[in-house]
Amino acid sequence: MKGNPFAARLAEFAGRIADRRLDLALVHGRADILALTGVDCDSACLKVSASGEAALYTDFRYEPMVNRVAPWLRVGNLKRMSFSARRAGFCSSISVARYDALRDRHPGVRFVDVSEDLADLRAVKTAGEIGRIRAAAALNDRIWRLARRKFRAGMTELDMARAIRRLMVGLGDGEAFETIVCVGKNAAECHHVPDGTVWNGRESVLVDLGVRLGGYCSDMTRNVVPARTSRLYSKVYSLVLEANRRAIAAARPGITSGSLDRVARKFLAENGFGREFGHSLGHGVGIEIHEPPYAAPRRKTVLKPGMFVTIEPGIYLAGNLGVRIEDLVLITEDGCEVVSASAK
Amino acid sequence: MKGNPFAARLAEFAGRIADRRLDLALVHGRADILALTGVDCDSACLKVSASGEAALYTDFRYEPMVNRVAPWLRVGNLKRMSFSARRAGFCSSISVARYDALRDRHPGVRFVDVSEDLADLRAVKTAGEIGRIRAAAALNDRIWRLARRKFRAGMTELDMARAIRRLMVGLGDGEAFETIVCVGKNAAECHHVPDGTVWNGRESVLVDLGVRLGGYCSDMTRNVVPARTSRLYSKVYSLVLEANRRAIAAARPGITSGSLDRVARKFLAENGFGREFGHSLGHGVGIEIHEPPYAAPRRKTVLKPGMFVTIEPGIYLAGNLGVRIEDLVLITEDGCEVVSASAK
Repeated sequence: MKGNPFAARLAEFAGRIADRRLDLALVHGRADILALTGVDCDSACLKVSASGEAALYTDFRYEPMVNRVAPWLRVGNLKRMSFSARRAGFCSSISVARYDALRDRHPGVRFVDVSEDLADLRAVKTAGEIGRIRAAAALNDRIWRLARRKFRAGMTELDMARAIRRLMVGLGDGEAFETIVCVGKNAAECHHVPDGTVWNGRESVLVDLGVRLGGYCSDMTRNVVPARTSRLYSKVYSLVLEANRRAIAAARPGITSGSLDRVARKFLAENGFGREFGHSLGHGVGIEIHEPPYAAPRRKTVLKPGMFVTIEPGIYLAGNLGVRIEDLVLITEDGCEVVSASAK
Repeated sequence: MKGNPFAARLAEFAGRIADRRLDLALVHGRADILALTGVDCDSACLKVSASGEAALYTDFRYEPMVNRVAPWLRVGNLKRMSFSARRAGFCSSISVARYDALRDRHPGVRFVDVSEDLADLRAVKTAGEIGRIRAAAALNDRIWRLARRKFRAGMTELDMARAIRRLMVGLGDGEAFETIVCVGKNAAECHHVPDGTVWNGRESVLVDLGVRLGGYCSDMTRNVVPARTSRLYSKVYSLVLEANRRAIAAARPGITSGSLDRVARKFLAENGFGREFGHSLGHGVGIEIHEPPYAAPRRKTVLKPGMFVTIEPGIYLAGNLGVRIEDLVLITEDGCEVVSASAK
């Protein structure tokens, strides 16, 4: 595996395969394969043995690309993939249909789910990945700055979402997810889909945006807060911002992702808005827009340096208003670094 | 289900559920739920009973959207979904993890795969869907026309792909798949990813593009053919075009998708390029860019009016050249209609 920038992660994965007394593991997920090899291919199987050898099986159409992107990787034809093993790892994220076919073709093999091992490995980013996610977050800040200047009274939510999408395509590799734009009370639906609602220039606007760049995602939520707002909106905004700050202050190695969620949740509950914060505090971000670690009430992932997690408390009052403030943070040796740099 | 534009398809699905002596079916796939209800939601389960009742279980964040998009549909909370059944349909496209959780929560239930029933129903488009796919294909033609005018010697493949992507975001809902642009011999890799290869203005360029519009996809491949080409390129181009025309002439109700593939494959083989056409002839297009019917050698789907299928023969000569010509066609009562209108 000479010249392989994924050697350390692959070696750690092989170690886990050996620890579980498996002969090898089969990885089918596009994001998982990308995270282990740098190869982006939607029709492939990566075979990793307990001794650390890796081979990618794909169809002939992708072979030249794989040879170029990962010259260190052995390549074979997916249709002719074979292996001998008593115990083999697989990821339970594959479809039932694919799993059934795999078991039919390898009747003697005992399959063991290794998806959590892979999720653990992927949650801690490599130096190269950290650089890419920082770049995606910096571009997201820039897009937010450029987009805000384009917002005018009379534009619809769809107009604003399209303006953002155009910037993302022009400056990056497009949207990491469908941009959310909510005018006024539409923000009370936390996954509102932009529609023809017209912005009168005096209402608040909630925007949840993330650009994809170099294979990695970013994620941030900001609100256009008009000069004059209701007393209720101001109060809700201050509480959400304070919840966001408290969680950021608490984010450091050693805390569990569930405890981090509770820092924000407890603060909002003490101030009378516990039930109005109806989703979890945050999620990891990387190749996928939602990936481990998940900062949700019952999760017990211990945060480690190199993990990215969003911190996005919100308060939603049906038919009235909604505020969410979301930052992407990187867990460091002694705390965290807020990677999202836009004013809030 | 008053005012429900999906009533006929849902009723047909309920009929299949009854035919298989199931009490109900659970549908989790985003595209499947969209095809049965018009609701686009990535975290939901649609329950359809043998008697035709439908209910969508989702999380609270999506409820307002569902009520607006499909007021005829009963909505419940995914976490509190329950049912009683002896035999229940499910789709084997769900993940092993999800299936295991489902079986753990419903220990007495016998689960039966109904994904092929759903695929059958989705392959024949409703009048509304046909209109949307036509609109997406017409926009794709327009984007190809506009994009070609922007191509200049000195541009890289990435520049050209970005120009197309910008048009797709500006005029439609973005790319249905990552646009493929291959300069010269890069076209020999049929799934080449656009890179920094510079176009000198005298080489051929293969472009495979599809825009998404109103929830539906389009798909087309065209080639920029320079004024002066090698004799080999001209010969290959003529053969691929003739294979495309012969398959179009053969596409009609009653023929199997495998026979359609063979029309093109046999012609290319007779002309010495059988092995250089290394993929299948085509695939259905709808909510997803690849969906049934699949026009591949061993497939036996009988084509019916209302089905869309791509016809995309190709010849790839490694390290030398590649040509693919792809049209989207709609099977009609007495043949087919070529929906892609761009010159070829």
